Amino acid sequence: MAPAPDSPQRSVPLSALAPDGALPVEPRRGDPPPALRHLVSIDDLSVPQIEALFRLARGFSEDLRRHAHLCPGLISASLFYEPSTRTRLSFESAMLRLGGGVLTAADMQASSAKKGESLADTVRVVSGAYADLIVLRHPSEGAARLAARASSVPVINAGDGAHEHPTQTLCDLYTLWIEKGHLDGLDVVLAGDLRYSRTIHSFIFALARFRANVVCVPHQGLELPDYVVKRLREEYGMEPIRADASRLGELARESDAAYITPQKPHQLSLFTDASGLKVERVDAVYMTRPQTERFAKLEDTRRYLKLGKQQMAVDGLKEAVVMHPLPRRDELSEDLDSDPRSLYFKQAARGVPMRMAILAHLLGRVDLGAPGPAAEPGFYSLPEGPNLCANPNCISRTEDRHVRPAFRLLARLPLRAACAFCEREFAPLWVGLRSERRYLAPEALRARRWEPEDLVFFAQESEAHELGYASS
Amino acid sequence: MAPAPDSPQRSVPLSALAPDGALPVEPRRGDPPPALRHLVSIDDLSVPQIEALFRLARGFSEDLRRHAHLCPGLISASLFYEPSTRTRLSFESAMLRLGGGVLTAADMQASSAKKGESLADTVRVVSGAYADLIVLRHPSEGAARLAARASSVPVINAGDGAHEHPTQTLCDLYTLWIEKGHLDGLDVVLAGDLRYSRTIHSFIFALARFRANVVCVPHQGLELPDYVVKRLREEYGMEPIRADASRLGELARESDAAYITPQKPHQLSLFTDASGLKVERVDAVYMTRPQTERFAKLEDTRRYLKLGKQQMAVDGLKEAVVMHPLPRRDELSEDLDSDPRSLYFKQAARGVPMRMAILAHLLGRVDLGAPGPAAEPGFYSLPEGPNLCANPNCISRTEDRHVRPAFRLLARLPLRAACAFCEREFAPLWVGLRSERRYLAPEALRARRWEPEDLVFFAQESEAHELGYASS
Amino acid sequence: MAPAPDSPQRSVPLSALAPDGALPVEPRRGDPPPALRHLVSIDDLSVPQIEALFRLARGFSEDLRRHAHLCPGLISASLFYEPSTRTRLSFESAMLRLGGGVLTAADMQASSAKKGESLADTVRVVSGAYADLIVLRHPSEGAARLAARASSVPVINAGDGAHEHPTQTLCDLYTLWIEKGHLDGLDVVLAGDLRYSRTIHSFIFALARFRANVVCVPHQGLELPDYVVKRLREEYGMEPIRADASRLGELARESDAAYITPQKPHQLSLFTDASGLKVERVDAVYMTRPQTERFAKLEDTRRYLKLGKQQMAVDGLKEAVVMHPLPRRDELSEDLDSDPRSLYFKQAARGVPMRMAILAHLLGRVDLGAPGPAAEPGFYSLPEGPNLCANPNCISRTEDRHVRPAFRLLARLPLRAACAFCEREFAPLWVGLRSERRYLAPEALRARRWEPEDLVFFAQESEAHELGYASS
Repeated sequence: MAPAPDSPQRSVPLSALAPDGALPVEPRRGDPPPALRHLVSIDDLSVPQIEALFRLARGFSEDLRRHAHLCPGLISASLFYEPSTRTRLSFESAMLRLGGGVLTAADMQASSAKKGESLADTVRVVSGAYADLIVLRHPSEGAARLAARASSVPVINAGDGAHEHPTQTLCDLYTLWIEKGHLDGLDVVLAGDLRYSRTIHSFIFALARFRANVVCVPHQGLELPDYVVKRLREEYGMEPIRADASRLGELARESDAAYITPQKPHQLSLFTDASGLKVERVDAVYMTRPQTERFAKLEDTRRYLKLGKQQMAVDGLKEAVVMHPLPRRDELSEDLDSDPRSLYFKQAARGVPMRMAILAHLLGRVDLGAPGPAAEPGFYSLPEGPNLCANPNCISRTEDRHVRPAFRLLARLPLRAACAFCEREFAPLWVGLRSERRYLAPEALRARRWEPEDLVFFAQESEAHELGYASS
Repeated sequence: MAPAPDSPQRSVPLSALAPDGALPVEPRRGDPPPALRHLVSIDDLSVPQIEALFRLARGFSEDLRRHAHLCPGLISASLFYEPSTRTRLSFESAMLRLGGGVLTAADMQASSAKKGESLADTVRVVSGAYADLIVLRHPSEGAARLAARASSVPVINAGDGAHEHPTQTLCDLYTLWIEKGHLDGLDVVLAGDLRYSRTIHSFIFALARFRANVVCVPHQGLELPDYVVKRLREEYGMEPIRADASRLGELARESDAAYITPQKPHQLSLFTDASGLKVERVDAVYMTRPQTERFAKLEDTRRYLKLGKQQMAVDGLKEAVVMHPLPRRDELSEDLDSDPRSLYFKQAARGVPMRMAILAHLLGRVDLGAPGPAAEPGFYSLPEGPNLCANPNCISRTEDRHVRPAFRLLARLPLRAACAFCEREFAPLWVGLRSERRYLAPEALRARRWEPEDLVFFAQESEAHELGYASS
Repeated sequence: MAPAPDSPQRSVPLSALAPDGALPVEPRRGDPPPALRHLVSIDDLSVPQIEALFRLARGFSEDLRRHAHLCPGLISASLFYEPSTRTRLSFESAMLRLGGGVLTAADMQASSAKKGESLADTVRVVSGAYADLIVLRHPSEGAARLAARASSVPVINAGDGAHEHPTQTLCDLYTLWIEKGHLDGLDVVLAGDLRYSRTIHSFIFALARFRANVVCVPHQGLELPDYVVKRLREEYGMEPIRADASRLGELARESDAAYITPQKPHQLSLFTDASGLKVERVDAVYMTRPQTERFAKLEDTRRYLKLGKQQMAVDGLKEAVVMHPLPRRDELSEDLDSDPRSLYFKQAARGVPMRMAILAHLLGRVDLGAPGPAAEPGFYSLPEGPNLCANPNCISRTEDRHVRPAFRLLARLPLRAACAFCEREFAPLWVGLRSERRYLAPEALRARRWEPEDLVFFAQESEAHELGYASS
C-alpha cells in the first residue's frame, strides 16, 4: 500500500546510525512516500548499496533486540507457494525484530492457487492494503519479476524456482565481509556440484562484482556450465585459468581446478606455469550439496566429496573459513562443527540482521545514501505473437493463461533477446515490426534503429503470416 | 476472556474521531467491561451502526498505519476449519494494524477437530484466555451461531458453509458507499449466477435494507430463487417488476431482467409499459462467479457471460462501477483491469479498514454512538424430541453428538419455526407442550398463547407417543 | 541468541510484583546476560521455584492484558513436529500477552525434517538469531533434551513423545493450588487409565513432590504400573496402601482403590482396617481419557467410566473439583459443564498465565528469588560402543545417524544407568573402562571408583572384543 502523503514515517540516513546500531526515527508529516523498490535479483542493488547494507546489518547485529522502533505499524506478508520454513522464519524474525507485523501464508499452493487465481491477482490484493511488503517464494522461474510488476508494495524474491534467491547470496557475501573485512581479492573455493545449483551461480556472479577470485573444485562431471563462464568473461571481465590446487589436498583431489580472476593474464604470468596457477592458500571454502535428483546412479553421490576435519587439515586451508547454505547432508561432516573455522551456523544466524537491513531499506525506513544500479534492463510486453521462452518452468508458461510474454534486449546486431521473466535467452527467431506489419531476420541491418516497443517475435514465418505480417 | 473490572481500556466515542482518522485512547480504571457482541449475521448490526462503521473505516483508510494504539494487548484468533487465505489475511492484517496480536490456526480440521473435539469445546478453551476475539471459518451452516453461544469473547463469522459471510457483504456495501456517497436509490446490477451463491443473497438483502434498487440479470436458469424474492417482498417491502434492460447490451442479452425496488407500483407506472420498466443507466455492476460444481454440463459454463471492455462499452453502463468478490475466473476479463470503473481490487483492499472498524467495535475500543438492532430473534433449545432441521450440512447435524437442536419462532398462526443455527425453516410438524405432555397440530388456535420455552417438535405422532405425549 | 552484554533488558525481582500484577521493567545497560535455562522436565524446577511461578501466574491472571512491557523485542519460535493446536496457541498467546513476537512452524515434519535435516541442526539455526526461546513439540522421546543441548536459547518441552509434557503438569498443579490455596495434604483422585498415560505419571510424581495424597481408582486392567509405584516409594517415600473408596460411589465401583501417601504407616493405623484406609471425602477428581489405541476390543472402552452429574452426586465428592486435560471424549459428560465444581475449562484457561510466568522466567525477565534444583543428573556421551537404549521411539534411535548415545548414572553398585535422552533404564550390560581398554560386569566392586566419563557399555562381550576391550 503506498503510504498516505502525510505518512508519519520517514527514512533515516544511514549516517545517523548510532554506535549501538539503533536508528533514531523522527516522524514528520508531509514527507514524500518512499519510491517503490523491489529485490528480485541481486542486480537490483548497486555495489555501494550492498556495502551500505552490510554496514547497516553489522549495526543491527550488535543487539538484535534494539530496533523495534524502526517498522512499527508496518506489515510484511510471507507468500510461500512451496514450503521453506528456514527462509520464511528468517524473514519473519527480521520483520518482528524491526517492530513490524507479519502475515503468514506458508501453504499458498493449497489455497488461493488451488482456486485457480493468478499470481498477479493474488499480489494485487495482498499489496492493496493487507501488507506493506511481500516476501515471495514460488516454484516457477520469473515469478518474482511478475509479482513485482503487479505489486503496489516492495516485493522480495525468496526464491523463484531455479532462477534467483538474492537474499541468500547477500547473506553469504555478508558473512565473508564480516569475517575478512573486505571481498575484493579474496580467494574463495567453490566445491562440489557447480553445475546444477543456480544459487551457486548467483554467488559466483556476486563474487565477480566484488572482484574476488573464485577457485572452482567441482565434483567430476559437475563443472561450471559454459554459459556461466561465458557470462563471467563477457560481463565481468573475469579470466578463467587452469590451476594447480594440490595444496588443497583431498578437497581438490578429484578434478582439475579452475581459477577465475579479474586480474589480467600478464599479472598472473609470474604465478603460472604448465600446471597452471598454483593455489597456495585460500580464504574460504564454500561447500555445496549435490543436487541428488540430477544423479543417474546413486553410487555417484556416494562418491561425492565429504568435507570434514581430515580434509581441512592441509596447510592451504589453514585459514579458510568453511561455509555451507544448509541444510546439509553427508557432504559436510559433523566433526567440523566444533572447528573455529566453521561458519555455516553463523552464516545462517547472520541472515537475520542482513534481512533486517534489506527490509528497512525496501520499506524506506533507512536511507543508504548510495546510488542505485543503472536503470534495469527494459521490460517489453509482446502484445501479439507466440511465447518464445523455451523454459517450461517459466512463469510465462506455468501461468500462460494470464501472462503476456515479455522480453528484454540483450544485443541489437544481431538482435538477441531474453525472456523478461526467467531471463533465458530466446532461440533464433523472426522479428516483426508492428508499425509496418512486416517481419525480417534478426540480422537485418535496420535492427539498429528498431524501437523495442514496436517489436514482436516469431519462431517461424507461418506465425507471422497468420497475424498478417508480410515478409520484406 | 472477559476483561478484568479494572481493565485499562475503554471505548472511544466515534465523535472523537480525529480528522486524520486516529482515535485517541484514554485508559481509565474502573470502566465497566464492554458488553459481549458478536457478528454472526449482518442482521446483528443496525443500519445506523453499519453507517457508523463506514465512517470509522473511512477514517482508518486515510492512513492504515496510524491506529496501532487502539488494540495493544488484545489478541484475535483465526480458527479456520477450511482454508481461505484471503479472508484470513484480511482479518489478521486489520488486527495487526490496530496494534493487536494474532493467533493463527489455519488448518483446524487437521488438528483438534481430528481428535473429535466439539466446536463448542474448542471455542470455550480458546475464548477462555487465549484470545480476546475469535474469527471463525467453518464448513457447516450455523457453526458461527453455535460458537457465539459457547464463547466468552466476541465471535466473527468469516463464513459458515453456504450460510452467511457478513464481513464480505459489509465490505461490498462499504465500497459502494465510498464511491457513491450513499446507498439508497442506487441502481445495482447483479449479474450471472443469482441462484446458488448465498453471499449474493446476503448482499441483496443488505441492499434492500439500505433502500437500493436491484437489477437482476441472471444467467439463464440461474435466476433468483423464489424464497429470496418472497423474503424481499415480505420482510423488506420490495417490489419485483419486469424490466427492459436492452440499454445494458450484451450484459443483459440472455434473459429477462427483473427490477426489484422499494418504490410502490404507482410510483413506477410512469416508467413502465408492456416491456416493463426501462433501465436507462445503472450505478454498479456486481459480477458473480458461476458455482461451477452445480453445472450438469460443462458447456453451460462455457456459455457463461464474460464481462469485459466490450460489454462495458454501452451507454447504460457508462457510469457503472464494476465489482466482483474475487477470486475471478473467466467471467471477468483482465482487459477491464485498467478501466477506471473497475473497483474489484479496491473492493478487496477496503476489506482491511472495514474489518479494522468491525474489530475495534466488537472489542469495545470504539463507541459507535448508534443503537443496536432490535432484540435478535429468540434462540430456544429443544430439551427433547428429534432434530427437525432438514439441512444435512447444518452444524446441528454435523455435530449432532454434541449439539441439542434449537429453533427460532417465525410466526405463531400457523406456527412456523426455523433451525436456530442454519435458519432453514422446519417442515410441517407436530407441536408438543412439555408442561402438559400433550401435542397438537401447529394450526391449533391456542398457538397464540404458547410459550416458546414450553415447546418441542415432532415430525410424526409416533415420536410424540414414544416420549409420552398424548394427542389432544 | 545470547543477548549482547549491553542488553537493555534485565530481570525483575518477583518481590517487585505490583498489586495489579504488573512488573516494572527498568532497562539498564551493563547487566550480565541471564543464565541459560531450559524446561525439559518438571524436575528442572525446584519446589520453591514452582511456587514462585504460581504466585507470578496469579499476578498475571489479574489482567492478562497489562504485561506487554515484559518481553518487547523478544521472539519465541514454535517448532512443532506433530500438530497440537491447543498447546501451540496457549504458548503463543502467552508470548503475545508478554509483548513478545512469535514465529510459527506448525508443520515441521513436512518441511526441514523432510529435507533430512537433523533436529540438532534445525535448533542450532533457529536459536542462532531467529528466536530468543524455542517451544518444541516432537514425537520422539528425549527430543527436547537433545534440543536443549544443541540450543543457544532456552528450550521448552511442549511434549516429546510419551516422555514428558512439563507445562501441562504445571498448569494442572497451578489450577489445584489456585482452588485450594495449597497442595500438601490434598486428597486427589486419579480415575480411569492410569497405566498408559505418561502425563498422568508426571502429574503423580509432581503431586508426590508437593506431599499430596493420591487416590488411584483405575479402570480395571489399567492400574498404575509397578515401576511408577516403585519410584514413588524409592524417590518420594510414598506409601501405597489398600483403600476403601465406597464413599466415592460409582466412580470407584470397578476396582480396588489405592491410597498413596507420604504419611508413615503408624500415622495411618487409626484410619485403616481390614478393608484398608477409608476414603471419606476428596478434594479433586482428575479424570483421564482412555488411551483407546491400547484397547484390544472396543467393548472395553464402552465399559469405560463416564463421569457425570450422577457420579458426582455422592457425599464423598461434594467438595471435589473436577479436572480433565481436554480434549474430552465420552468419559466426561457435558452435563457437568454447568456444575460449579467443574474446572476443566478454567484449567485450560489458566495455561496462559502459567505459561506467561514460565516464559518470563526462562527469558530472564523475572527473578523468582528461589534456588534452582540440585544439579541435574549428569549427561555422559558414549564416544564408542552400541546404543543400549531399548526404546525404539527414543530420539537416539529415530535420529541415530546424528545422535551419539548418552547415559546418566542411576546407581553405582550394582551399576545402573539410563538413556540420557528418554531416561529409560538400560538392560543388564557389560561395562568398559576406556582408559584401561578392559571390560567388567556391572557388579564389579570397583564400580564405586569408576569415573562416568571413562565408561562405555556393551550388550554382549563380542561388542567389547571388536573394539579391542579385554575381559578382566
